[in-house]
Amino acid sequence: MNSFRKELWFNTVNRREFINITSQIETCLAESGIREGLALVNAMHITASCFINDDESGLHSDFEKWLEKLAPEKPYSQYAHNGAEDNADAHLKRQIMGREVVVAVTNGRLDLGPWEQIFYGEFDGKRRKRVLVKIVGE
Amino acid sequence: MNSFRKELWFNTVNRREFINITSQIETCLAESGIREGLALVNAMHITASCFINDDESGLHSDFEKWLEKLAPEKPYSQYAHNGAEDNADAHLKRQIMGREVVVAVTNGRLDLGPWEQIFYGEFDGKRRKRVLVKIVGE
Amino acid sequence: MNSFRKELWFNTVNRREFINITSQIETCLAESGIREGLALVNAMHITASCFINDDESGLHSDFEKWLEKLAPEKPYSQYAHNGAEDNADAHLKRQIMGREVVVAVTNGRLDLGPWEQIFYGEFDGKRRKRVLVKIVGE
Repeated sequence: MNSFRKELWFNTVNRREFINITSQIETCLAESGIREGLALVNAMHITASCFINDDESGLHSDFEKWLEKLAPEKPYSQYAHNGAEDNADAHLKRQIMGREVVVAVTNGRLDLGPWEQIFYGEFDGKRRKRVLVKIVGE
Repeated sequence: MNSFRKELWFNTVNRREFINITSQIETCLAESGIREGLALVNAMHITASCFINDDESGLHSDFEKWLEKLAPEKPYSQYAHNGAEDNADAHLKRQIMGREVVVAVTNGRLDLGPWEQIFYGEFDGKRRKRVLVKIVGE
Repeated sequence: MNSFRKELWFNTVNRREFINITSQIETCLAESGIREGLALVNAMHITASCFINDDESGLHSDFEKWLEKLAPEKPYSQYAHNGAEDNADAHLKRQIMGREVVVAVTNGRLDLGPWEQIFYGEFDGKRRKRVLVKIVGE
């Protein structure tokens, strides 16, 4: 069994952003030389997500509006976690969107459905944060 | 390390359905000959889920009602994604229910708890869609 | 490829609790002798979660309040699943918090970000329930 590890770094302009990282994960897979196995892609921070969905700007604005409805950023005082921090909403939003994705690797390719794209979901950005890519297989 | 890959196809009668696919995954595992490892089961479409929960019809109607409350299908015009499409709600519902499950394989069996059952959750059906089963191990 | 399996048992005092199990998973990893691979940590019961977030008591009270807003325990009669059971809300809460986490194993360590901690999330406790730890690699 072989394994490959790489960290991807992000520093978003906005507090919340969705970034398509599919091609970066494909590059990792090519570097790994692994042809059969599993690829784990996870946010290393607890106020961010990795998830798979559609690369469509209308949908991304729907996600933004929906997550703000389910776990609003403000007022900050509604959350016990806030005080020194102001990011409790980001911890909640990340639970809905998920920490990680596990993607099959088949014949040296990410084995994705026709519209599946891998995203980094930032909910408390404007600072350097990381995604871990771990690929295991042969 | 060995690996096994199979696609399962579904074409639901209704827009939203929950289908117990545990026995189909068990059949895949038997075909694979793998006795120790991990089984990844993921929706290949971004308006569907694979998840693990209870096979109880009352609970499934609770899921339906609850998901409609959190991410209503209608009015279609509430979502920026809709227009050519009408399935924005399905993209949201799938984030709550999840894309994938990873199940341990032990002694050639799916290593599930007493009530764990694997489901395909369809949120935009009435057309042919796929689940990917990838099993890696020895 | 090597594999390791262990069940962790919990019996919470309260119906809902969050328990930091990171050190128990680290102990499992040390026992396994695996240095490169993947660790799957999943609730074996469908009214509980394993998830990764912050070990901060304010945030945990925010989770409790938020999950009660999104999927309230009472009135029990609002859920079709209830009757013989009273735990439909726990099945819903667990979908938001997730069943499982998959963690990279690198150089014999759980490859976690700086604040990532692994939790058992109990939503229908006061009875003995299990978490499965399955580690595969070399």
